[in-house]
Amino acid sequence: MITKQIITEAHDRIRNYIHHTPVFTSASIDELAECSVYFKCENFQKVGAFKARGAMNALLSLTREERARGVATHSSGNHAQALARAAKIMGAKAYTVMPRNAPDIKKQGVLAYGAEIFECEPTLASREERLAEVVEETGAYVIHPFNNYEVIAGQATATKELLEEVDDLDFIVAPVGGGGLLSGACLAAEFFAPGVSVIGAEPEGADDAYRSFESGQIEPSQSDSIADGLLTTLGTKTFPIIQENAKGIITISDKDIIVAMRLIWERLKIIVEPSAAVPLAAVLREKETFRTKNIGIILSGGNIDLDRACALFAQQ
Amino acid sequence: MITKQIITEAHDRIRNYIHHTPVFTSASIDELAECSVYFKCENFQKVGAFKARGAMNALLSLTREERARGVATHSSGNHAQALARAAKIMGAKAYTVMPRNAPDIKKQGVLAYGAEIFECEPTLASREERLAEVVEETGAYVIHPFNNYEVIAGQATATKELLEEVDDLDFIVAPVGGGGLLSGACLAAEFFAPGVSVIGAEPEGADDAYRSFESGQIEPSQSDSIADGLLTTLGTKTFPIIQENAKGIITISDKDIIVAMRLIWERLKIIVEPSAAVPLAAVLREKETFRTKNIGIILSGGNIDLDRACALFAQQ
Repeated sequence: MITKQIITEAHDRIRNYIHHTPVFTSASIDELAECSVYFKCENFQKVGAFKARGAMNALLSLTREERARGVATHSSGNHAQALARAAKIMGAKAYTVMPRNAPDIKKQGVLAYGAEIFECEPTLASREERLAEVVEETGAYVIHPFNNYEVIAGQATATKELLEEVDDLDFIVAPVGGGGLLSGACLAAEFFAPGVSVIGAEPEGADDAYRSFESGQIEPSQSDSIADGLLTTLGTKTFPIIQENAKGIITISDKDIIVAMRLIWERLKIIVEPSAAVPLAAVLREKETFRTKNIGIILSGGNIDLDRACALFAQQ
Repeated sequence: MITKQIITEAHDRIRNYIHHTPVFTSASIDELAECSVYFKCENFQKVGAFKARGAMNALLSLTREERARGVATHSSGNHAQALARAAKIMGAKAYTVMPRNAPDIKKQGVLAYGAEIFECEPTLASREERLAEVVEETGAYVIHPFNNYEVIAGQATATKELLEEVDDLDFIVAPVGGGGLLSGACLAAEFFAPGVSVIGAEPEGADDAYRSFESGQIEPSQSDSIADGLLTTLGTKTFPIIQENAKGIITISDKDIIVAMRLIWERLKIIVEPSAAVPLAAVLREKETFRTKNIGIILSGGNIDLDRACALFAQQ
């Protein structure tokens, strides 16, 4: 199990390899949302996403022998980049299985860090099958994108930093795909600010976390959303943490995700990917819950092709 | 004349009304530019541009009687917003003359601060004529967007902050329209870091600063560029400061401005308007001058309609 000390140690371990990202606010978004929103800008994180934290903690937690075997993973993009970067820093080889339809910008990032890419179909089954083949072939040590306690502890440090910087938060809202960020947020809040309620936000078209939270068992994802970072299913390590600690999961339409993404671009003058906009969409819609409260939002990443973003905005 | 003390006092005066904006860096931009670039993010400034500094300093420098008359200006947008905001804070009325073709996002900003807009043709003659009419009608005190020593001293504080945060800069590159930001940068460098060379960057289609710098007298601008913040002509107060202190002016094509703007959006994950991208375009092109150097760039503002930005990127 992950303890307060484990998260603190993870933070100390990765501190020199990651950005301490800034927290932004916007008076005009606060006015619109009728509450005070604090945006933790993990879009400015190394590799453009919070995933740099978990991957770095995982690499730094390996023994020398494990590192020498190289590391492997499957990922829609941000974890692949994060692992490739962490491996490069530690002088280890990295092998990444990525779905054919992963954004080019994320594939290019992986290649730029010198990692190898193995393409697969955009399904969990295909990802796992291809990864098993790669491990068979290379002997690499698997660092799962979220179902891994070192990764979860690393992601928890984003929320820890936010809680250290902003007092008096009532809520933390984090996007949920596989649940690494959200389970980390749950643990960080429990240990460092027990009064803060943690809520997950996910696309309607990939609402497996919502359904799992309701049914009490891990439900499969149908993976249909523009939020390409949130299409995966909860894992056996992330689900129990979320089930025990999260206050709820809010599901959001792709249309509302685009509206929230545009708001963030226009008002904060920063670039975030669709996945990162899901929590703000939740706050804007569920006004009964959030009105007049202090809300921390993890802006999970900023990796989106500009041309794709422009195409999404043109749909509005 | 503006002294070191005047800039320091301006900074102290406006400090509580403006953001101390962050300085961003990007390893991938440094690699591309073959130098170290420090971006002073005035796109995150109040009203989305450095203009908040000069306008606030001007308002705070007025007597109670002057403020009671209200303030007026002509501006393509950012100064109008900045003046409207400063006037609102100080409880004064603001009247702004804006060209018909000023971006909607900037007009909306002005209206949101409760100022009045008077439209004019997009020429300096029309702007000045309309402003004279407005002043005749209202008795308002004119705060010129750049040809005003309080405004120049206010804009200088952006460079002062950058110099306080980053040691060992070799160059500061700032965009030049009317010259408020650039003349302020020249003075701040002279007073706070005399070894730093200051260079202006402007669109080829509005290269009046370049031609004025060469000829030794203020030349008119032909005002043809996508960089809508840089279409004005140097003023009688800004030109002598620039002529005496700047090391040169670099002119940039609209095509290169769009390339630099996309780079900033993609690599720094932040939104800047075309005018703000001109200095990076200059650094990327003039490699002989800037290679291996430490360069401070003022990212002047971030006010651009997303749809317009997408249309510009689509032209590439």
